[in-house]
Amino acid sequence: MRDTLRSWAETPTRRRIVDFVERVSGVGPGAVPAAERVAVFDNDGTLWTEKPMPTQLHYIVQQWAAAASADPALAERQPYAAAVGGDFGWLSDAVDKHYAGDDSDLKLLIGAILTSTDGVAVQDYERAVAEFYRSARHPTLGTPYRGAVYQPMVELLRYLEAHGFSCYIISGGDRDFMRPITSEYYGIPPERVVGSAVGLSYDAESAEVRYGATFDFMDDGPMKPVRIWTRIGRRPILAAGNSNGDIEMLRYTQGSPDSLALLIHHDDTSGRGDAPYDSGAERALAAAAEHDFTVVSVRDDWTSVFVPQAAAGTA
Amino acid sequence: MRDTLRSWAETPTRRRIVDFVERVSGVGPGAVPAAERVAVFDNDGTLWTEKPMPTQLHYIVQQWAAAASADPALAERQPYAAAVGGDFGWLSDAVDKHYAGDDSDLKLLIGAILTSTDGVAVQDYERAVAEFYRSARHPTLGTPYRGAVYQPMVELLRYLEAHGFSCYIISGGDRDFMRPITSEYYGIPPERVVGSAVGLSYDAESAEVRYGATFDFMDDGPMKPVRIWTRIGRRPILAAGNSNGDIEMLRYTQGSPDSLALLIHHDDTSGRGDAPYDSGAERALAAAAEHDFTVVSVRDDWTSVFVPQAAAGTA
Repeated sequence: MRDTLRSWAETPTRRRIVDFVERVSGVGPGAVPAAERVAVFDNDGTLWTEKPMPTQLHYIVQQWAAAASADPALAERQPYAAAVGGDFGWLSDAVDKHYAGDDSDLKLLIGAILTSTDGVAVQDYERAVAEFYRSARHPTLGTPYRGAVYQPMVELLRYLEAHGFSCYIISGGDRDFMRPITSEYYGIPPERVVGSAVGLSYDAESAEVRYGATFDFMDDGPMKPVRIWTRIGRRPILAAGNSNGDIEMLRYTQGSPDSLALLIHHDDTSGRGDAPYDSGAERALAAAAEHDFTVVSVRDDWTSVFVPQAAAGTA
Repeated sequence: MRDTLRSWAETPTRRRIVDFVERVSGVGPGAVPAAERVAVFDNDGTLWTEKPMPTQLHYIVQQWAAAASADPALAERQPYAAAVGGDFGWLSDAVDKHYAGDDSDLKLLIGAILTSTDGVAVQDYERAVAEFYRSARHPTLGTPYRGAVYQPMVELLRYLEAHGFSCYIISGGDRDFMRPITSEYYGIPPERVVGSAVGLSYDAESAEVRYGATFDFMDDGPMKPVRIWTRIGRRPILAAGNSNGDIEMLRYTQGSPDSLALLIHHDDTSGRGDAPYDSGAERALAAAAEHDFTVVSVRDDWTSVFVPQAAAGTA
């Protein structure tokens, strides 16, 4: 089992992870039954990079640019104007403003997202998203999006599974935008993907489940423990996040008798392609010090960052 | 594999089940990848008896009788008066009226249910429900509730699993009232239990998820396909139900290229302990004829009905 975390440096962080996993999966007094070995992972910024912007913005911008081409009146308004102009700054600023407590631009974004899927059958959206992933390239890495996945985290998922854990994604991102690729990228099937959700309804005429025009919930902050209970029905024993929106999930996990709370810290200035930033993680880093989260330093704890190009594919 | 459905008679129903399962799990042109072999089951009336009343009513009545003892003013009002007086008829009528389209008494019931769990931590409720199941006896069978489980359906669950299926419960009952016993009774873990839900919130002070004072949704009728997509992210290929509230789930499942829709029909007058009734299933039986659901006759298709007493336990 020694070499299954091979992209993790020999640091106290790695030792703490291995000690925890061996303890709960062993036969000693700290053993936890396999069914209770639940691990939860944030996605953007935890399992793959969220810079320069969350992947879904890339997809949505393509949709909006196409819609504005078909209807020039749309191109006068945000967020369509930003999409047509390639103004990714405005779009990612909207997300940053959300983390800073200002949801005004995010609401414009969400409204336009809802418009784009209103009435669409969930399996048609699934196909459109899968098609996007087949052709899109990450804007700074230049690879398919699979190349934006953190190799050490994939190794951690496999290491946990080998020790009887069940791994889930608990993300603020759109659940149905993740599901088409989580099996391939992370080995996590759709039923273990928890995220934000648009309201759904059943259309008896066509026997299809379709998106509605309203947002159901944002799976972030205090909603993450709620969704964990709703979907899993157990309190996790391991959680990993990277931002202010993960604090409650990490704290909830620490309510288990034995637990490990990991906070990925994007501090790598060595030019390996992962942008260093603390924006949106300020409170999480402070909580880490107060509550003994295990901070994972991209710079010091990871010997490699992204999945290799060959594994990432070039199709 | 022949003897794994040993409580199923040699009828066309059994043949249709076996043919379907062998086709989708085989290597021929009708094969379905294992990951897509999703089967969904209603609970009350499908996996165990719902007569003389859904099990949760038994639990709630105990809670209400205790509350009314502590506060005599409560004993003047419904549903507490019915609880104190042992008037199970009023309570089960409330559920029957719901299936007939009149929710007035059901709303009284739900209001009192919400009052009883408002502010309670989900894991405290889990413990209270588990304790109930350890001591309670089914009112007509006289056994622990495990003895109210349909033996042929447990065999079907195991048969499907042996052929690579993942089995879920999709019930109108309270999700968190089922989860404490589904692993033991059915071999279905909590993360595969989908049901009606009370609203939840995260209490950061205690790091607990707690019930609120509002109902979140009733997982019945057209909500079943919605919750299937939300929780599983795939369209099932097999579904089993028994009442009007299962029609949409069965029809949704039939939208798969190959599928099996089972409708349990409670028609056994032979005195084996399963009450015969069509009430609440009238539209489902009509839909079965129209849409080619496979009707499972308790009388003709099952050689035994309930799990044996030894397996059911006597604790």
